[in-house]
Amino acid sequence: MLGAGFIGDFYTFSLHGQRSRDQVHVIYSRDEARGKAFAMKHGIPKWTTSMKEAVNDPEVEVVVIGLPNNLHLEAVQLAADAGKAVFCTKPLGCNAREAKQMLDAVEKAGVMHGYMEDLVYTPKTLKAIQSVRAGAIGDVTWARSRETHPGPHSDWFWTKNISGGGVLLDMGCHCIEIARSYIGKDIRPVEVVCWADTLVKPIEAEDNALGWVRYENGAIGQFEVSWSFRGGMDLRDEVMGTEGTIWVNNFLRTGFEMFTVGGKGGYVAEKAETATGWLFPVGDEVVELGYTDMFTDMFRAYETRGKARETFYDGYIVNEIMDACYRSAKSKKWEPVTLEVWRGREKTDPINAIRDYDAEHILVKEETMPDGRVKLILKNKKTGKITQTEIKK
Amino acid sequence: MLGAGFIGDFYTFSLHGQRSRDQVHVIYSRDEARGKAFAMKHGIPKWTTSMKEAVNDPEVEVVVIGLPNNLHLEAVQLAADAGKAVFCTKPLGCNAREAKQMLDAVEKAGVMHGYMEDLVYTPKTLKAIQSVRAGAIGDVTWARSRETHPGPHSDWFWTKNISGGGVLLDMGCHCIEIARSYIGKDIRPVEVVCWADTLVKPIEAEDNALGWVRYENGAIGQFEVSWSFRGGMDLRDEVMGTEGTIWVNNFLRTGFEMFTVGGKGGYVAEKAETATGWLFPVGDEVVELGYTDMFTDMFRAYETRGKARETFYDGYIVNEIMDACYRSAKSKKWEPVTLEVWRGREKTDPINAIRDYDAEHILVKEETMPDGRVKLILKNKKTGKITQTEIKK
Amino acid sequence: MLGAGFIGDFYTFSLHGQRSRDQVHVIYSRDEARGKAFAMKHGIPKWTTSMKEAVNDPEVEVVVIGLPNNLHLEAVQLAADAGKAVFCTKPLGCNAREAKQMLDAVEKAGVMHGYMEDLVYTPKTLKAIQSVRAGAIGDVTWARSRETHPGPHSDWFWTKNISGGGVLLDMGCHCIEIARSYIGKDIRPVEVVCWADTLVKPIEAEDNALGWVRYENGAIGQFEVSWSFRGGMDLRDEVMGTEGTIWVNNFLRTGFEMFTVGGKGGYVAEKAETATGWLFPVGDEVVELGYTDMFTDMFRAYETRGKARETFYDGYIVNEIMDACYRSAKSKKWEPVTLEVWRGREKTDPINAIRDYDAEHILVKEETMPDGRVKLILKNKKTGKITQTEIKK
Amino acid sequence: MLGAGFIGDFYTFSLHGQRSRDQVHVIYSRDEARGKAFAMKHGIPKWTTSMKEAVNDPEVEVVVIGLPNNLHLEAVQLAADAGKAVFCTKPLGCNAREAKQMLDAVEKAGVMHGYMEDLVYTPKTLKAIQSVRAGAIGDVTWARSRETHPGPHSDWFWTKNISGGGVLLDMGCHCIEIARSYIGKDIRPVEVVCWADTLVKPIEAEDNALGWVRYENGAIGQFEVSWSFRGGMDLRDEVMGTEGTIWVNNFLRTGFEMFTVGGKGGYVAEKAETATGWLFPVGDEVVELGYTDMFTDMFRAYETRGKARETFYDGYIVNEIMDACYRSAKSKKWEPVTLEVWRGREKTDPINAIRDYDAEHILVKEETMPDGRVKLILKNKKTGKITQTEIKK
Repeated sequence: MLGAGFIGDFYTFSLHGQRSRDQVHVIYSRDEARGKAFAMKHGIPKWTTSMKEAVNDPEVEVVVIGLPNNLHLEAVQLAADAGKAVFCTKPLGCNAREAKQMLDAVEKAGVMHGYMEDLVYTPKTLKAIQSVRAGAIGDVTWARSRETHPGPHSDWFWTKNISGGGVLLDMGCHCIEIARSYIGKDIRPVEVVCWADTLVKPIEAEDNALGWVRYENGAIGQFEVSWSFRGGMDLRDEVMGTEGTIWVNNFLRTGFEMFTVGGKGGYVAEKAETATGWLFPVGDEVVELGYTDMFTDMFRAYETRGKARETFYDGYIVNEIMDACYRSAKSKKWEPVTLEVWRGREKTDPINAIRDYDAEHILVKEETMPDGRVKLILKNKKTGKITQTEIKK
Repeated sequence: MLGAGFIGDFYTFSLHGQRSRDQVHVIYSRDEARGKAFAMKHGIPKWTTSMKEAVNDPEVEVVVIGLPNNLHLEAVQLAADAGKAVFCTKPLGCNAREAKQMLDAVEKAGVMHGYMEDLVYTPKTLKAIQSVRAGAIGDVTWARSRETHPGPHSDWFWTKNISGGGVLLDMGCHCIEIARSYIGKDIRPVEVVCWADTLVKPIEAEDNALGWVRYENGAIGQFEVSWSFRGGMDLRDEVMGTEGTIWVNNFLRTGFEMFTVGGKGGYVAEKAETATGWLFPVGDEVVELGYTDMFTDMFRAYETRGKARETFYDGYIVNEIMDACYRSAKSKKWEPVTLEVWRGREKTDPINAIRDYDAEHILVKEETMPDGRVKLILKNKKTGKITQTEIKK
Repeated sequence: MLGAGFIGDFYTFSLHGQRSRDQVHVIYSRDEARGKAFAMKHGIPKWTTSMKEAVNDPEVEVVVIGLPNNLHLEAVQLAADAGKAVFCTKPLGCNAREAKQMLDAVEKAGVMHGYMEDLVYTPKTLKAIQSVRAGAIGDVTWARSRETHPGPHSDWFWTKNISGGGVLLDMGCHCIEIARSYIGKDIRPVEVVCWADTLVKPIEAEDNALGWVRYENGAIGQFEVSWSFRGGMDLRDEVMGTEGTIWVNNFLRTGFEMFTVGGKGGYVAEKAETATGWLFPVGDEVVELGYTDMFTDMFRAYETRGKARETFYDGYIVNEIMDACYRSAKSKKWEPVTLEVWRGREKTDPINAIRDYDAEHILVKEETMPDGRVKLILKNKKTGKITQTEIKK
Repeated sequence: MLGAGFIGDFYTFSLHGQRSRDQVHVIYSRDEARGKAFAMKHGIPKWTTSMKEAVNDPEVEVVVIGLPNNLHLEAVQLAADAGKAVFCTKPLGCNAREAKQMLDAVEKAGVMHGYMEDLVYTPKTLKAIQSVRAGAIGDVTWARSRETHPGPHSDWFWTKNISGGGVLLDMGCHCIEIARSYIGKDIRPVEVVCWADTLVKPIEAEDNALGWVRYENGAIGQFEVSWSFRGGMDLRDEVMGTEGTIWVNNFLRTGFEMFTVGGKGGYVAEKAETATGWLFPVGDEVVELGYTDMFTDMFRAYETRGKARETFYDGYIVNEIMDACYRSAKSKKWEPVTLEVWRGREKTDPINAIRDYDAEHILVKEETMPDGRVKLILKNKKTGKITQTEIKK
């Protein structure tokens, strides 16, 4: 485990959670006291201030990276050199160039790699994606993914030359990959338009960003990220398909509500802002945030010499999309997503859900009216004229 | 009442609803049979196929326009000529040019005018806006308004040369004015970026559109409209402020849930798609959709010679924003909102929520951690360096 | 209007609300200053400290009673003597004896009477009951109605010799009539069991009560009332039917959510307990609590010489049920509901939803399993043996 | 693993789930084909039709019982004789007598025992109970636990001489133990009143039951169970405390909503009734239903020679409460809970939340009114008179 911060904590809780057979063998932290405290807390046998030593420890089979963004490349390089499997936290790189270097490094070394995009692994998201793939909502036309909260935990996030960017880089990566997972990971992201601004926080980087990613089949992946949201952590996805809809709420409204006047409830949930009044805890955070299923997938892939659901290739694609977003936020127009590597479909047809009503008409719409009649809107195939008619069902 | 269609029905139900003292005196419809049936159904004494006759009927004090978009201008002109108050349904014009002509007509004639943007009048929206104005959530930084459903009721909506446009014109007008109401109607809308596409329906106009309207203080009004949503009518607003959040759901999840195997429940709600399984009716639709409070405001304004909350001036602003959206959808870049008439503030400062922590530091963020400690992120005022510290509360 | 308290306020807001043609002509209050202030606030022309004067005012057509429970009988008697229509707030009497006297008084005088049980008139409840009557959920087997909040507004509620009882009398009346409306007002309530205790408040009367009312067809009406609930006002109904389910939330979760750090949101909602953190306002309280539709029904009945949906007869039935509840709370067993007057069905058969599967079997249950198979539970008509089988659909 | 039915499946999925180190070694099923198929499906090395053989298999350390109710006693006896730890599904016995025999057997044999009451182990319930114990909602005055669905999976549940009872025995045991966990497991359950009836299903046993369990401190545990609920599986708990409220929804509304016209979504969730329209899947069922945390607790207890959160002692208490419920359903009055064994507190004082306002008054209530004033209800300590006053805050 590289990194003894907030995310390292979450990862270790997951890895050691329930009846797990996995175990963190050594923790690396720049700060020895911190590393030691982390080791004590989690029952980890060793700690070190040398990243290299940690990676090359003979008992370590897999390197798990939970470091600030600007250290990912170095850590990945060390793991690749050591010939060890490597799981890296999100975003993969500070930019696409770095991400590409990491992808090249692990592929060249032939080591197994996992991109720790936990939010596509939440139990709800996994099940929802499975339903989409099974055809439950037809073709996805739009997927909105939103992650907003009152700002990150550690100082380095707020410092651009360490983090590489603001909220777009920090959380846009989640939302972009979630939307991509719903729309189809083999469909090429073509172009983006992005708004990014520093509205509330006294920082250099953007604290709010919005974006649309247009895919080759016409579908739109919409992301909304903010470090200035009030009220906790808002993690929601909405998906529109030609034959259905999916709404997923991963955090702030999951069927657990508490009102307290006393404020003796203790820790409520990640990024909760209040301890009295109406609170919305979550059940098991490491499960609900996807960590448990993510590690299961990655270790299973490691043991079976298979491929994780999320690899460095996916991390690279996301970094390219974010680079295009930063370009668009400046140019104030749609910007193409440039991809040096693309392993999906070469060509995807536009979404097509047109359905004949009869020999002469296309069905535009069908609706039940307040008085029970069914109203049809039809388009004449030849003339193109649109008319309405009513039928009894 | 001009127009005997779906919206005319809703308007008349509202006007005649509960213990109302208002009464529709004459209904105009091109189609006599339809006008007569409408009159019978609602207990209206007269019907006519002459718009002019209806407007000039001596018993009519107020002209209520519920006609297809391309007839608004003509109807407004008639009312202005007759010196009568006129309430016009949304959107005001097919474009800003038409809207400006209508605004000029009523102002020149000196008649009272109301822009029937019902969705800013829903009881929840009225109360939410009041809270925002009272400072409950600080400065609004982002307001998302969403209206999606499986498509409009009548053939003319789907026919571009009657409607003047697709879903952007039909429903974008709602969302744009809702967001503007949250952000502040006296703050100038500066520029827009818009995506519009025909993804699902066999029509010429767009069936899906998304847009961001940037206001002078930096706030973003986001709209999402679709005629291809599945599952009913989704009417939701989300507002982020520097000190709070508002979520309003006007239709599909309002605390009324029904499961039925029998399908004998009858009419569920406007644009509901199913009659078995889990259904989500609304209580009183004319109240929940804002019609009741809208007419109350407008008639009160009429009687007191005051101004309605929504006037033709507002309708004109919305049309200008939509024109800019259509330009942006084509140019694929941000487009300025050009306003021939602007009656709001000439200059609005950017949102500013920066707060000192102590003499040397600005507070970036404060958070309670899982173990109860409170973590502060601070920025040094001189050096700009961002650091973190922990305190006990 | 008799009574210038909290409920008088709500009633008058409703009566004068929106575009209403109704008008309060005179307000009676024991306290002159209070009556005058009330009159000023609501634009009521007259006020008086004489109940008799108010009732006999020649401009008054309808007497609306919003007084403490122990004054209802006297006020009703005055209205009956004056030959005027009378609407009385809930509960009708402090007990069944009083209620019976009131019923006799108005019937003898031949005046129109309305029992102001507002909560069966909420828009959601009206629509839900309509769906139930139309057969949407089959036969109702169980209806739970819950009203809990942190305690009533005025001192008199807490004083037993004025109120006549505690939370059971104050709010049980609502829940009992709601459940009765779902189950069927023509089905005889047969017996009750009730628990009532003073758990939290320093008062003589009960501050918490629970009860089951068994109807002749086997259905159970369950009520839950409390003056010690924390978090606002919880007004929910749940209905189980043989073919469906209804869940109605009238107050605390209706699709309107607000988070505020500033607490500048002002009044949130009736009996809300907090002004910061997550708040749950309602849209238009007088609509959502049923006052608007209640007065519409009652005045329509008055004008058409018809009958209100809720009359003194209903108030009497509810009082009898509550009397039986108080007896049961003491005797610790089921107690019969004694009814001096019963105008519903003389005999109702038990609920029967048994359905044949084929000539030899009754269908007990059908379920789709995780792997897609459909499992049937069948009962042999002759042997009574229950077996399971699987089919593909 | 004893039992290859629905619950055996769930248990095995949990035991083998994620990165678990636990493994089922042998499966016992009366039916060899079924046992073999189960073994194949789950990768279990052995299967047998001899319960004794399974229990005595040398590789087996822990016996997990997932059998029909009438076989629990025999299986527990075998495990105790073999000196092996034993985890038994709910309810422990068909009645208290059987449960007592099982408790005696394991205690005499000195083997570790776990009562597999999964629903007190759901992540939400665990966290909620922890908050309650930490004082977040003050003293619990009422805990409602509800489990309703359209009926159980297997024929034996519906056959009284195998199951030992109907829905009360099958699911009441869940709800009783959940409520007991919130109120306090060391507080003595004193008496019960219960309604049970066969309203809908063509069976001998009850298909609907309701009950209140009164604890020594005055708190009420309320259960609601049904095999005739329509719409899926409703698993909700509501807890009232003197200083707060908790609402937990474990299944049907957890932040995952799907609308589909196609019905290609596959398996939705346990006991879901529909495959089109609005559906409400859950994320990871074995987590959300508590199986994961239950086995973690039990195996941790086993390995550390500690005690599970739920033991046979708890199962016995629940059986005694249910026996009293069956008595009450017949006698139609409150029945005492008789406990041969009681290991909790000998005496618990009544809940007391009375708070002084000043030297002379007790605070009855405090409320913010629509116009912003704060209204106090006070009780004079000497005279007992209740008065109201208003203050500005």
